Amino acid sequence: MNRLKTLKQLAFEKKGFDGFLITNEANMLYMTGFPGAACILIPEKGDNILYVYNVNYEQAKAEGKSFHIELVKRNENLMKKVASQTLKFKIKKLAIDALNHENYRSLAKNLRGKTKLKIQGKLLWELRKVKDEKEIELMRKAGELTSQGMKTAYETIKPGIKEYEVAAEIEYAMRKGGGWGTAFDTIVASGARSAFPHGGCTDREIRKGDLVVVDIGAVYRYYCSDMTRTIVAGKPSQKQKKIYQIVKEAQAKACQAVKPKVKAKYVDEIARKIIENAGYGEYYVHGLGHGVGLEVHEPPTLNPESKDKLAIGNVVTIEPGIYLPGFGGFRIEDTVLVQKRKSEKLTKGPYTLEAQP
Amino acid sequence: MNRLKTLKQLAFEKKGFDGFLITNEANMLYMTGFPGAACILIPEKGDNILYVYNVNYEQAKAEGKSFHIELVKRNENLMKKVASQTLKFKIKKLAIDALNHENYRSLAKNLRGKTKLKIQGKLLWELRKVKDEKEIELMRKAGELTSQGMKTAYETIKPGIKEYEVAAEIEYAMRKGGGWGTAFDTIVASGARSAFPHGGCTDREIRKGDLVVVDIGAVYRYYCSDMTRTIVAGKPSQKQKKIYQIVKEAQAKACQAVKPKVKAKYVDEIARKIIENAGYGEYYVHGLGHGVGLEVHEPPTLNPESKDKLAIGNVVTIEPGIYLPGFGGFRIEDTVLVQKRKSEKLTKGPYTLEAQP
Repeated sequence: MNRLKTLKQLAFEKKGFDGFLITNEANMLYMTGFPGAACILIPEKGDNILYVYNVNYEQAKAEGKSFHIELVKRNENLMKKVASQTLKFKIKKLAIDALNHENYRSLAKNLRGKTKLKIQGKLLWELRKVKDEKEIELMRKAGELTSQGMKTAYETIKPGIKEYEVAAEIEYAMRKGGGWGTAFDTIVASGARSAFPHGGCTDREIRKGDLVVVDIGAVYRYYCSDMTRTIVAGKPSQKQKKIYQIVKEAQAKACQAVKPKVKAKYVDEIARKIIENAGYGEYYVHGLGHGVGLEVHEPPTLNPESKDKLAIGNVVTIEPGIYLPGFGGFRIEDTVLVQKRKSEKLTKGPYTLEAQP
Repeated sequence: MNRLKTLKQLAFEKKGFDGFLITNEANMLYMTGFPGAACILIPEKGDNILYVYNVNYEQAKAEGKSFHIELVKRNENLMKKVASQTLKFKIKKLAIDALNHENYRSLAKNLRGKTKLKIQGKLLWELRKVKDEKEIELMRKAGELTSQGMKTAYETIKPGIKEYEVAAEIEYAMRKGGGWGTAFDTIVASGARSAFPHGGCTDREIRKGDLVVVDIGAVYRYYCSDMTRTIVAGKPSQKQKKIYQIVKEAQAKACQAVKPKVKAKYVDEIARKIIENAGYGEYYVHGLGHGVGLEVHEPPTLNPESKDKLAIGNVVTIEPGIYLPGFGGFRIEDTVLVQKRKSEKLTKGPYTLEAQP
């Protein structure tokens, strides 16, 4: 597997580690293609080991190719087992992607000072944030399904319908199209609640003229997508139209700026300046976007403090917003693939404010 | 709030701490009723503090009652901020529910040795595993929605339909009924894949005579439910019927044993013995069940190694299974509330093997 080779190059050849312990679920899935591992241990020399509890043992044997599958019995301590194998491999400097404090201490104790431990959270992100052709294909499909869900939102939103009823139709459309589920809890936040960026989805009845922020994401074969539109149930008011245009322009200009080698904070700045210049800077309460992949929030990060640079194969969201407490919120978001020439929107849908039931 | 009072009694009066830092999402939701906190700090004396990033600030002010809402700016370090407040409160012994190793080290460094830190993961579980009346009401509703989803599964499964199409109908039914989403990725695992307890849900077409393990859970106002049935598309075979009866008996007997003050491992033993005596012990590859609440896997744990005792207000799953590699799997699961007299099944549905399209 290419990913194993690249990780070994980065961690062992470049950084001087001679072992890698991976415990983060998405990282394990990325490395093994199997979703139910307890942890994985990659030595510089020797078999790669996938630790798995009995409940997932048969599935691991069928799906966890190119790994030695090691059963963890119910009464065994996982960190003790990993430590024992680490010592057998004579690993001297072990990189770890992530570990909670208790497991870190337990592992260190069982290694009796014979192996140096170091958390290397960013290393796997270096791999994961550049999507390969196969990943891009899956993310395109996730984007299509999400776009289908958004089409349903435009067709469904009308005065009298409840937020969760809209969510039901959206999710049904994504599932019927072949989706594997939702990347996060669907947001259908209406009225004053639309001013909460993470307003969720309740049994509130949508009323005529309400702003409705719809933020959704389908998963396809473990890959996420992320898309937001702001929709008015009925005829938009002048004020709604005016603010919507500002967000729309900010989002469009930022999307155009998505290119390889561009600083992420520069893309953020483009959208932010447009909103600030229109006088709504203080109501834009979050960053411009984030990477998307096996998880819905990944590197690179697009905000004023970001140190990331965009690269070919990154997939990022572009999602500026304006949130007026008591009045309502506006956000427009697409998932965008960074390519050599023109960036490619993986989510597609109208930039219209009015519902089309 | 009662929960704050109980936590303070347990942690401060009984255990001698004078501060509690909570970082686990479900724990924070449990303590505040608000889903978007960065972390919360509860001092023995002084205001309880809910730290929140700008994106959720307005929502926290609206929903995070009885907490002082503290904005964390984008360029601020959260652990540094928490340390500074901990020192202001003169907290000497700080309990922490959970923290990754890096944040633990950062917090410790910023406290400059003036505050002792101790991970106290189990303490909040003591509270959370006993559900109050309001929680039970929400879990009843989550159970009803899940049962409605299972009814749809029985009506939908037939030869020729794909796994994800069944999932689409199930999830749609739960959502239309008012559900907030799914507690975990819906499992509709058919044919040989039904022998994988976590077989997920693919685009495989269900064939005549296939075993289909359907494991689903609706969420209602943050509370989860969990239910499994094993369904045959078409007429079950004699072998399918025979094994099903064993699992059915094991599940029924274990459900009857769910009572306050009973050892969890004893309930596990009842089901396990029935399966072992029938000669399928080695194919029962997991524990009997787990607690359910804000998370779908919580204490208490029901397996042979469990040290838990059941108590009034616990909500647990009872889910024995038999998994024959290459042949298929059988699991029957209900979510059960422990009550003074008779335990109450929160998920309701037939114990029949045959689909009813």
